[in-house]
Amino acid sequence: MANTTYTLVLLRHGQSDWNEKNLFTGWVDVPLTEKGRAEAARGGELMKAEGVHPDVLHTSLLKRAITTANLALEAADRQWIPVKRDWRLNERHYGALQGKDKAQVKEEFGEEQFMVWRRSFDTPPPALDDSSEFSQSGDERYAELGEDAPRTEALKNVIDRLIPYWEAEIVPDLKAGKTVLVAAHGNSLRALVKHLDGISDEDIAGLNIPTGIPLVYELDEDLKPITANGRYLDPEAAAAGAAAVAAQGSAH
Amino acid sequence: MANTTYTLVLLRHGQSDWNEKNLFTGWVDVPLTEKGRAEAARGGELMKAEGVHPDVLHTSLLKRAITTANLALEAADRQWIPVKRDWRLNERHYGALQGKDKAQVKEEFGEEQFMVWRRSFDTPPPALDDSSEFSQSGDERYAELGEDAPRTEALKNVIDRLIPYWEAEIVPDLKAGKTVLVAAHGNSLRALVKHLDGISDEDIAGLNIPTGIPLVYELDEDLKPITANGRYLDPEAAAAGAAAVAAQGSAH
Repeated sequence: MANTTYTLVLLRHGQSDWNEKNLFTGWVDVPLTEKGRAEAARGGELMKAEGVHPDVLHTSLLKRAITTANLALEAADRQWIPVKRDWRLNERHYGALQGKDKAQVKEEFGEEQFMVWRRSFDTPPPALDDSSEFSQSGDERYAELGEDAPRTEALKNVIDRLIPYWEAEIVPDLKAGKTVLVAAHGNSLRALVKHLDGISDEDIAGLNIPTGIPLVYELDEDLKPITANGRYLDPEAAAAGAAAVAAQGSAH
Repeated sequence: MANTTYTLVLLRHGQSDWNEKNLFTGWVDVPLTEKGRAEAARGGELMKAEGVHPDVLHTSLLKRAITTANLALEAADRQWIPVKRDWRLNERHYGALQGKDKAQVKEEFGEEQFMVWRRSFDTPPPALDDSSEFSQSGDERYAELGEDAPRTEALKNVIDRLIPYWEAEIVPDLKAGKTVLVAAHGNSLRALVKHLDGISDEDIAGLNIPTGIPLVYELDEDLKPITANGRYLDPEAAAAGAAAVAAQGSAH
């Protein structure tokens, strides 16, 4: 008997308006750029060409991930699969940095503080005030969270709210034999990859996930990756994309 | 205390490739045309402008309805709402007519037979052979139906398979106070409208639903329409659209 393996596909959304403008985005619900839409469609074409056929989709509640998934599944001819959406797959909440220019923040607060806010495992940026134009306070999609809605998050906080969703919603789909597509964000996917590959709190700082390129994990019965770090469907573009993410914050 | 009312929004998909070519489509999974995509976006803009905010989406498993919903919700800025998809919302299965030119069928079989196949309440066209290129036999999305998958349907058959979904999935969402958007097809929506408005088996033949224009029903506690036949968000365009549907089958 062949070993049971599970297939998980991670897809980071394509370029958004604020990626292009080099702003911290977090939970602000900005749309994809035309480039981002093209990246999403290409991600779907790669899945189709490689014979990766998602059976179920999980997305965040943010349109840049949802539109990426819609366009990818349209290109892959799999629009009909079931969909689940949850705030637990959202991008890291960037707190008071939401809406700020990355290069300006770096200049104003210095390289060290900038990197702490961007890559510290457990030190979040200052909390975002509910009165900010970049706050999600009053957004009906988060109403059920009440006072528990985050006002800022470090990666650790993302892990703490994402893993319960992984266990409760994604793992059962995998164990039912479904190929699961997760369309989400740089930091929610880093949180998941850290969990899957058992990456240390220190080493995760150096891991960058490129946009729009499906990352395929084959998992064993214990949900451990059969090949560490998974497999990008376009490894060359993925390497270039990860380098570009790492370089963010540089003046444009 | 105000009376409880429920809000249901019906949206027929925009023009598809085969609408444009005047072919019987049924369960064949054809994409929208550019015109159809624009209709879908406009449907979403109408909802946004009129303050109609869907809280949950139900679609068929066919891409013309799914893409219509995606584009409408993108325009309405409601992409994050939960989605349920089900074959029971699919278009009527057109049997052996699937893939055939409407004008040719009319010429070959005569006006009377043509209208029986198009509008008879309970006489389906001949069944589609599983070996046909236009059959959905072997399509994984219908695998769970097994031998029960339809090979042809009259409107009565659509009602028989749709109403259980209405009762089990849509009504509970309405009763939970959610504004429900159903993105579906000419005949699955006619079946639903027949049920809601209590239209007779004879009179339903004369009812045509235009593409891309949201049809809003306010329902009372017994799920009866407060205003019969609902309310189109663009009544003038709806009247013109319904007339255009009625004229299908004429030579182009």
